[in-house]
Amino acid sequence: MTSQRFTRPISRRSVLALASALLAVGAAAITDLPFARLARAQTVTADPLGSWNDGPVKQAIVDFVRAATDPANRNFVGPEDRIATFDLDGTLWVSHPMYTQVVYAFDRVPAIVKAKPELAKVEPFKTVLSGDQAAIAKLSAKDVEAIVTAAFSGMSVEAFRAETIKWLETARHPRWKQPYTALAYQPMQEVINFLRANGFRTYIVTGSIQDFVRVFAEHVYGIPPEQVIGSADTLKFGYDADGKPLLTIEPKVLLDDDFAGKPDDIHLIIGRRPFAAFGNSTGDRQMLEYTKAGRGLRLAMIVLHDDANREYAYGPAEGLPDTRVGYFPQELYDEAKKQGWVVISMKNDWKRIFAFE
Amino acid sequence: MTSQRFTRPISRRSVLALASALLAVGAAAITDLPFARLARAQTVTADPLGSWNDGPVKQAIVDFVRAATDPANRNFVGPEDRIATFDLDGTLWVSHPMYTQVVYAFDRVPAIVKAKPELAKVEPFKTVLSGDQAAIAKLSAKDVEAIVTAAFSGMSVEAFRAETIKWLETARHPRWKQPYTALAYQPMQEVINFLRANGFRTYIVTGSIQDFVRVFAEHVYGIPPEQVIGSADTLKFGYDADGKPLLTIEPKVLLDDDFAGKPDDIHLIIGRRPFAAFGNSTGDRQMLEYTKAGRGLRLAMIVLHDDANREYAYGPAEGLPDTRVGYFPQELYDEAKKQGWVVISMKNDWKRIFAFE
Repeated sequence: MTSQRFTRPISRRSVLALASALLAVGAAAITDLPFARLARAQTVTADPLGSWNDGPVKQAIVDFVRAATDPANRNFVGPEDRIATFDLDGTLWVSHPMYTQVVYAFDRVPAIVKAKPELAKVEPFKTVLSGDQAAIAKLSAKDVEAIVTAAFSGMSVEAFRAETIKWLETARHPRWKQPYTALAYQPMQEVINFLRANGFRTYIVTGSIQDFVRVFAEHVYGIPPEQVIGSADTLKFGYDADGKPLLTIEPKVLLDDDFAGKPDDIHLIIGRRPFAAFGNSTGDRQMLEYTKAGRGLRLAMIVLHDDANREYAYGPAEGLPDTRVGYFPQELYDEAKKQGWVVISMKNDWKRIFAFE
Repeated sequence: MTSQRFTRPISRRSVLALASALLAVGAAAITDLPFARLARAQTVTADPLGSWNDGPVKQAIVDFVRAATDPANRNFVGPEDRIATFDLDGTLWVSHPMYTQVVYAFDRVPAIVKAKPELAKVEPFKTVLSGDQAAIAKLSAKDVEAIVTAAFSGMSVEAFRAETIKWLETARHPRWKQPYTALAYQPMQEVINFLRANGFRTYIVTGSIQDFVRVFAEHVYGIPPEQVIGSADTLKFGYDADGKPLLTIEPKVLLDDDFAGKPDDIHLIIGRRPFAAFGNSTGDRQMLEYTKAGRGLRLAMIVLHDDANREYAYGPAEGLPDTRVGYFPQELYDEAKKQGWVVISMKNDWKRIFAFE
């Protein structure tokens, strides 16, 4: 956040208004003025949650932020503790029909096999190369993991970054024919910006590979690399031919940032319990529980994909839980209601889903 | 940093001066004004490195910061990339005769044995309980590690935090009879503050246990929990008797933040290469190499403990490398000279060592 604050120019009008205001008020008030006010002053002109339909869900966000930022409110949250965490796949962008990183991994298979020709006859690479969609759809979770591991390791962190950038530039989602980065949910972008304008630091906490998400998180969500927490493989420090240090990604899991791994990694990397958390599946359950169990008012929200027309419907909305991506069974829905998590209905609460619409 | 920026009041004089300046200049200049200037304007009145003797070492810090923050300089560093990393033990505070966390671990032994009486007859606990200083001094690195592991695991993160706070309040360093937190090096405090005032985010990157250091890092160095990277044990997510989530520290290493672990963890947690790094021993070697190998001007500094009167002398200063704490052999000194790392002589470069002096 610091970086953005430093680089984002403040508008001339805001500055002049601030300058006049500062000159007008007394010394006591001035010495108490936190920089946060500068940011807040910029956001009052339009509805910061314009893509949300009015109703209790939108109101829950507004009420939470109002309480957290009002020093007179008993649920006021000190600026240092304003942490909000967001799952990525299915919470901040589309995760159907496959997680974006899985699409990437599958697209990498020809290059992987080119580098190691012996893999052409080894499963699951053989099936992926065959192009047989029915057989590919039947690959097990373990097969998919093997492909992801092969795609995300065995190279330097810089080489991986370059590959990801190249892929993101050309890959298109099969349904919308848009770059994957265009499939960010506009209402969630607004929540991120709204929280940030109110002094929250916004983190992505994802089961996807951290270095994959870091490539686009700053550009798409304004979330810098140090605020992306994700699954990660072990790194190996070594030297290149010129004797320069080199970090190589090993095919060995270090952080599995899903389920219980989410609160574990939040403690590891942030060291503070979030005051707001957002998810959409069983993989987010422990993060939402951990957030909600903290003292004072905490906001836990969960996106229900119930809009087959504009996006997808899965989980309790269809009564048919999808065990492969974004599993949201009835049991999780029941826990949400019991624990006071706010369920976001994509169909009813979101006026608009994508920025390109 | 964000948190500090939000909460630190700006002085009345600065605000009035800024307000007048803003009203005086034209629109084009105003819209380009980054918040960084506010911070910088506060630091020009006194020498920010007042505890340093004038000379090439102090000058190297000033020159680096000047270049990094001057948009017209070819070594200008964008605010988002202004990352500085500091080793802790021997770099930011005293690490002799034992690392502070090792003193803590030894002091915890009676409580550990009380909880598990069978350990009273098991080494190395038996030797520690005996109070035989000669025998204790002969414990191997592996023995010490076993004591540290026992002291730092088997409880919730909250219980560990409470224990550490209690210990820090009463423990005193044997030589200065001061709380350990008072043994922070004043010149390094000034470097941290100087970098921060110039838009750098300052991280601790330590071989000591992350959660131990987080307890005091904000109070002592102004470094918040999310900017403390250290060694860490695996966490286990579970529920307490009331069904509330609980993070328990397991006796199993997750991150070993020393030697090659430092650049690995910097990538894992920050995801950017530092522009400045500070260390004092072989455990910092890879971090300094990694920092220095980045493009553009990078600052790598290493503290040489050559002042037996005011602190300690070890490493090449005495020709007697200490393999137990802060190993700084001649070979590392030679690499420093070859790679252009700046060697800080405690004796010659520091006017004052502690704030309490």
